[in-house]
Amino acid sequence: MKAFYFCGPIIKTNYIMADYTQMWTDLGLNHDNHNALLDNLGKAYQSIFMAQENRPEGMSYFDFVMSEAHGLRIQELREEQKAGRKIIGSFCVFVPEEIVLAAGCTSVGLCAGADFAQEEVEKVLPRNTCSLIKSFFGFKLGKVCPYMEVSDMIVGENTCDGKKKSFEVFKEMVPNFYQMDLPQTKTPMARHMLKQEFKSFVEKLEEMTGKSISLEDLKQGIATVNAKRQALRRLSILRAADPAPISGLDALLINQIAFLDNPVRFTEKVNAICDELELLIKENKGVKTAKAPRVLISGCPMAIPNWKLPSIIESTGAVIVGEESCIGERGQRNLTDDSGDSLDGLMDAIVDRYLKIDCAVFTPNQERVNHIKEMSQQYNADGVIHYGLQFCQPYIMESFSVEKELEKQDISVLRLETDYSQEDMGQLSTRVEAFVEIIK
Amino acid sequence: MKAFYFCGPIIKTNYIMADYTQMWTDLGLNHDNHNALLDNLGKAYQSIFMAQENRPEGMSYFDFVMSEAHGLRIQELREEQKAGRKIIGSFCVFVPEEIVLAAGCTSVGLCAGADFAQEEVEKVLPRNTCSLIKSFFGFKLGKVCPYMEVSDMIVGENTCDGKKKSFEVFKEMVPNFYQMDLPQTKTPMARHMLKQEFKSFVEKLEEMTGKSISLEDLKQGIATVNAKRQALRRLSILRAADPAPISGLDALLINQIAFLDNPVRFTEKVNAICDELELLIKENKGVKTAKAPRVLISGCPMAIPNWKLPSIIESTGAVIVGEESCIGERGQRNLTDDSGDSLDGLMDAIVDRYLKIDCAVFTPNQERVNHIKEMSQQYNADGVIHYGLQFCQPYIMESFSVEKELEKQDISVLRLETDYSQEDMGQLSTRVEAFVEIIK
Repeated sequence: MKAFYFCGPIIKTNYIMADYTQMWTDLGLNHDNHNALLDNLGKAYQSIFMAQENRPEGMSYFDFVMSEAHGLRIQELREEQKAGRKIIGSFCVFVPEEIVLAAGCTSVGLCAGADFAQEEVEKVLPRNTCSLIKSFFGFKLGKVCPYMEVSDMIVGENTCDGKKKSFEVFKEMVPNFYQMDLPQTKTPMARHMLKQEFKSFVEKLEEMTGKSISLEDLKQGIATVNAKRQALRRLSILRAADPAPISGLDALLINQIAFLDNPVRFTEKVNAICDELELLIKENKGVKTAKAPRVLISGCPMAIPNWKLPSIIESTGAVIVGEESCIGERGQRNLTDDSGDSLDGLMDAIVDRYLKIDCAVFTPNQERVNHIKEMSQQYNADGVIHYGLQFCQPYIMESFSVEKELEKQDISVLRLETDYSQEDMGQLSTRVEAFVEIIK
Repeated sequence: MKAFYFCGPIIKTNYIMADYTQMWTDLGLNHDNHNALLDNLGKAYQSIFMAQENRPEGMSYFDFVMSEAHGLRIQELREEQKAGRKIIGSFCVFVPEEIVLAAGCTSVGLCAGADFAQEEVEKVLPRNTCSLIKSFFGFKLGKVCPYMEVSDMIVGENTCDGKKKSFEVFKEMVPNFYQMDLPQTKTPMARHMLKQEFKSFVEKLEEMTGKSISLEDLKQGIATVNAKRQALRRLSILRAADPAPISGLDALLINQIAFLDNPVRFTEKVNAICDELELLIKENKGVKTAKAPRVLISGCPMAIPNWKLPSIIESTGAVIVGEESCIGERGQRNLTDDSGDSLDGLMDAIVDRYLKIDCAVFTPNQERVNHIKEMSQQYNADGVIHYGLQFCQPYIMESFSVEKELEKQDISVLRLETDYSQEDMGQLSTRVEAFVEIIK
């Protein structure tokens, strides 16, 4: 048993962890870099998550998943591969998991939330690139991401300029890149194009697996993913109770794990913690004090281990009541209609479902601000913190109109722009504290 | 006669300029701001253009156009309006001038190359937005652009994230905005989409004018624009002689004026200066010394009056032999096939022509680096300066692969990133001088 499992030495569990050194070697990871990464992440997890008090018991499963994120979960994925499944890595909630599952494949998220090997990254990408993009480049160049290395195919998409153009470089670094084009509007032509792209994606997966997707496969894929979304929806509603039965940090963590874990097992565990949260709410028990200031986060996604802003917010005594984010409601709220009785009908339903995602790459994107207002009202938020990753043009540009529209409705907004570094922690804390003081 | 015509007091001409004060008032310009702008531009024009020696006589026409860019040309456009023509303003070489002309309308370019009212701009756009976008916002907010104000319709396009998202704000500032969607790839689906967009644009223009575009109209539109492109192509080849018969600055200016002037008259004047250049070449006369270091500029467009980098380059004694730019060969090099005998056939030819534009918003975009290599060889360039506007993600990201590919062919590259401010003049000069020293 080594000392550098991800969070392993920190989280107390009753089992003996395996030695994954050989597996990591097989995957081509750089041990020194990987150990350094896990060591840092373990410390961050300890200070941010394990230091919280009164966490629901159900969080022990998610702590366990995190402790084994680079260990047991990767081993599972490799066992799936041995049994003939393909692992599909992706960077965006636009890559339809229903279709991946229907093809008998497994979907994993590859977005990354930590600076790594940034000097190497800045040799191939401009310094003024958003941290999320620089991070997955750094994870690749530093050879520290077992999910990337285990993937049989990596799917990039033409969303923002940053991803679209950086994938031209990234695809030269991996042997198995597939690019998905996406529309920039939601016109009938855009829908037509998206359907074509999803059909091409089906063909690609069928070519990889050598098997055709049947109506039953697709129905099952939709059912599995819808069940996951419904469980996360249940969590979204329960977490918003006052006092909050679960911290915003823990709720975000569950949303992050949604991109890594086995979807059926994950859904069971989310429902299990939701059962517990219902009891806690009945007993009026909370992890935060009643009447704590209630903050909604809106904006760019927060990939593991990008917990900087939420930990600052909750350290003020405020509670985060929701994330209007790809890792959060933007990515998960809409279900796919499973009532179709033909493959083409189900494909239409999938296209319609994905075209509802209100990402800032679309123009116009009024649906997003409407959704922020809805969330704000439904979860009784006292204010909205707009989270923009520096150099993410779509979200940062949109934040101006979001602020304007929310303020018309007397919703307080704090617009923040940051990256993955720790350098602005002091400044961010000061601004967040002042905002929480105003809204409480 | 007032003292603030654009370059008016500086360029010696034999005619008495009219007083355009009333016209500018009618257009809603802010006189104080506009005077300040013209005053600055006049001084810049004087020091950059008029201070050059041995300019071809044919440049006097283009000096005249510049001196009357906010005067006589605007008066002409208003007269065209009185006669029933519509003025169509646009920001991108993807808006097809053939179609605008076929509809009996006039096309004018609205990109702007100077900082103006930046404090106001940064209230509605992020500071980290490229200068070109901030500039046209500043020209609108400061009420200093008669082209914007005279336009009957302003066409924005979904190219980069910056323009796409900022147009959501811009369209609220003008009464007559039309948005054109564009593909991000060059697949058959992308072509299908672009054709649909161009057909919608035809319909919009027909609705505005109340007249249908005939086969003859479209043939004429294509002929006019092709003639302009052929004249600019002739200029591109002639300017590359050694010694250069015309400066890169003057050649750029002509390319910039292509977006403002009457296309038929402009074509005549470009051909006239080309006749003169042919004579100068025969006589071995140049504006630069023979064997001057030869620089190719590649990258972001340079809108009037963004002459900062070219003036730095040529002040070292080097000559700019070409611009791989929208305001330059990227925008003008391809002709539209006019051999079709149906409206739909000509529309196909237009779509095919525009889809050849190798803008960095496309992925992949190998055509662009091929074109840079071709230009570099054809014009016998000693080195390439890649010009990136700060925060222009598509071009700055692409500059890394451009540099890599050119260096494989032993073509020297200097990658620069700058904005419209004068603050980095010293640093840019030092870097350009060092580069010119290396390549000569």
